[in-house]
Amino acid sequence: MPQAFSFTLLKSDGAARRGEIVTPHGKVQTPAFMPVGTQGTVKGLMPEAVAATGAEIVLGNTYHLMLRPGAERIAALGGLHAFMNWPLPILTDSGGFQVMSLSALRKLTETGVTFRSHLDGAMVELSPERAIEIQALLGADISMQLDECLKLPAAPAEIERAMQLSLRWGERSKRVFEGRAREGYALFGIVQGGDDPRLREQSARALTGIGFDGYAIGGLAVGEPQEVMLKIVAEVAPMLPQDRPRYLMGVGTPDDLMEAVARGIDMFDCVLPTRNGRHGMAFTRFGSINLANARHANDPRPLDEQSPHPAARTYSRAYLHHLTKANEILGQVLLSTINLAYYQALMAGMREAIAAGRFGDFHAATRAQWQQGDIPPR
Amino acid sequence: MPQAFSFTLLKSDGAARRGEIVTPHGKVQTPAFMPVGTQGTVKGLMPEAVAATGAEIVLGNTYHLMLRPGAERIAALGGLHAFMNWPLPILTDSGGFQVMSLSALRKLTETGVTFRSHLDGAMVELSPERAIEIQALLGADISMQLDECLKLPAAPAEIERAMQLSLRWGERSKRVFEGRAREGYALFGIVQGGDDPRLREQSARALTGIGFDGYAIGGLAVGEPQEVMLKIVAEVAPMLPQDRPRYLMGVGTPDDLMEAVARGIDMFDCVLPTRNGRHGMAFTRFGSINLANARHANDPRPLDEQSPHPAARTYSRAYLHHLTKANEILGQVLLSTINLAYYQALMAGMREAIAAGRFGDFHAATRAQWQQGDIPPR
Repeated sequence: MPQAFSFTLLKSDGAARRGEIVTPHGKVQTPAFMPVGTQGTVKGLMPEAVAATGAEIVLGNTYHLMLRPGAERIAALGGLHAFMNWPLPILTDSGGFQVMSLSALRKLTETGVTFRSHLDGAMVELSPERAIEIQALLGADISMQLDECLKLPAAPAEIERAMQLSLRWGERSKRVFEGRAREGYALFGIVQGGDDPRLREQSARALTGIGFDGYAIGGLAVGEPQEVMLKIVAEVAPMLPQDRPRYLMGVGTPDDLMEAVARGIDMFDCVLPTRNGRHGMAFTRFGSINLANARHANDPRPLDEQSPHPAARTYSRAYLHHLTKANEILGQVLLSTINLAYYQALMAGMREAIAAGRFGDFHAATRAQWQQGDIPPR
Repeated sequence: MPQAFSFTLLKSDGAARRGEIVTPHGKVQTPAFMPVGTQGTVKGLMPEAVAATGAEIVLGNTYHLMLRPGAERIAALGGLHAFMNWPLPILTDSGGFQVMSLSALRKLTETGVTFRSHLDGAMVELSPERAIEIQALLGADISMQLDECLKLPAAPAEIERAMQLSLRWGERSKRVFEGRAREGYALFGIVQGGDDPRLREQSARALTGIGFDGYAIGGLAVGEPQEVMLKIVAEVAPMLPQDRPRYLMGVGTPDDLMEAVARGIDMFDCVLPTRNGRHGMAFTRFGSINLANARHANDPRPLDEQSPHPAARTYSRAYLHHLTKANEILGQVLLSTINLAYYQALMAGMREAIAAGRFGDFHAATRAQWQQGDIPPR
């Protein structure tokens, strides 16, 4: 019998929280970073390699998987865990964000959204009910409600309309999720309201009233400056129930993660470590390093001799530079791995620091090391 | 103290040979297949993953590595083994084949070849002496002489001219290789002569007279029908010394490998398992399978439940089909891995069969299974 979803807040340090999520497919220590497995794969990495970076949960994309290979097909093949050979927890988004960012010719009504598939041009419908159905077919441990996600800046009236629609969709999502009786599985609501604190508060209160297993902050990291994002996070987080996980969607850089944890966030997902890795960029304790730069061509040092991950300790910068310049798959694989391992090491460092009540020190030391920059060659 | 190069013929079964090569970086059981690490990486695979397929030696490309990142640079970084994190044996080709197939504006003289780099258009010179120097800088366990490699069909006079030039280059290669005093490292000569048995014999006899640590058959798998290739192999192999390894360059399909082993070949290299893997093609005990085909979309079966490699046992055809259609890196990585593992399993099967004196049975059973084709879905 798999374990039912739960969240335990183990320790607080200022606004930063150390917790544990239990799901039917295992436990997740928070603050947690979820690698993105867009199309049923964390790009370039074997699932064992994803787990070896320290990841305990990955994110799957409803939008991509519903279009290809299809949710019913994945269900017939045993669900997303079996399909992608990832036995640990999976959170799936609801598709709302990708409908906005990837598909043309969207038509939004109270019922849901109709859009043109970016793959074959077919018209596809997605409603709050269908989004929940798809996520059940995938077998997600954590499902997300469908929401309408706007790009910022947006007009106040437009932000309010989208927030109110997302709320009503949240209610419908809750109703249909409960009707499917997926005992022990979780549904998260999504706070919307753009950069308007009043709308964000209204959304947070109303969602809490409906009652979800966790709460996401959506509609951020969509073009606004970091300070706007962090201001909203700082305002919204305290409005959410203490005893439920808080998930900041689509965020972010290592700095974003640390600042958001400092403001009470427990969960993150972002394509940055894998996408930037595929383009020759490494995230390290010393800040980010562009391996395409010619200064690495003769550098025998690994990216970080003290990394807990062997890939960051083993391969020379010269080799990573060569693979990047030669556009070799292995360069993309190694840098994606190294970046995910750094993200996970950063999260582990934050968890340890919060547990020990010294998050402030960790924050300062980590930032200082980023700013000090890359260690110079011997 | 690393071990010096040697070859021991352990057992013969008809013309098929079971042997062991010792090199400064370890032993290689023959018949052996060498995955191709063109640009300092077997495309898409971590070196541990290459070793996990059963490979005991990889091939590096002089042409590619001399142009990028440069042989002197690799030497300064500790040699090719360290650069690519591959501690086992490496054979490097001499660049002759790639000069023919990849570079425009070649100018061939007695001295060597001048060509335009396919990367940046720079004019580059390669001589027998420079080819040996480069391979020494790379630290190759086995170096190859520079040869002139023609496409077939070619005019008889042209084939003879190229064969004679390759012979003279072989002599110069031997001289400079000995002059570098790389104790324990090996140099192979290359038999040329196109599809002319008389020229092939002349080449084989003359090279044997010069004396090499091993002998390659070059200038095949360059467009001629399989039967022409196998006829040349069957004629040339018996002319080569029994106590030296025989290497058929750039070959081939699983069927090519089995037929060439039956004719006395000990070593192979080919990009087929990785290149075809990157294009959705799997090599299996049941023949080749095109994963892009829609018939795999709902097939929950792995490629081969009896494969010694977990990747071939774990991932469903439906998942591999999905990754192929979605052009996901992981699809390329998994199919390259699965293909290399099949090639290595095939070589291991041949080695075992020769040792047991039942190569003929193995040959017949393997061929029957290929022809029987893919097992139908349940």
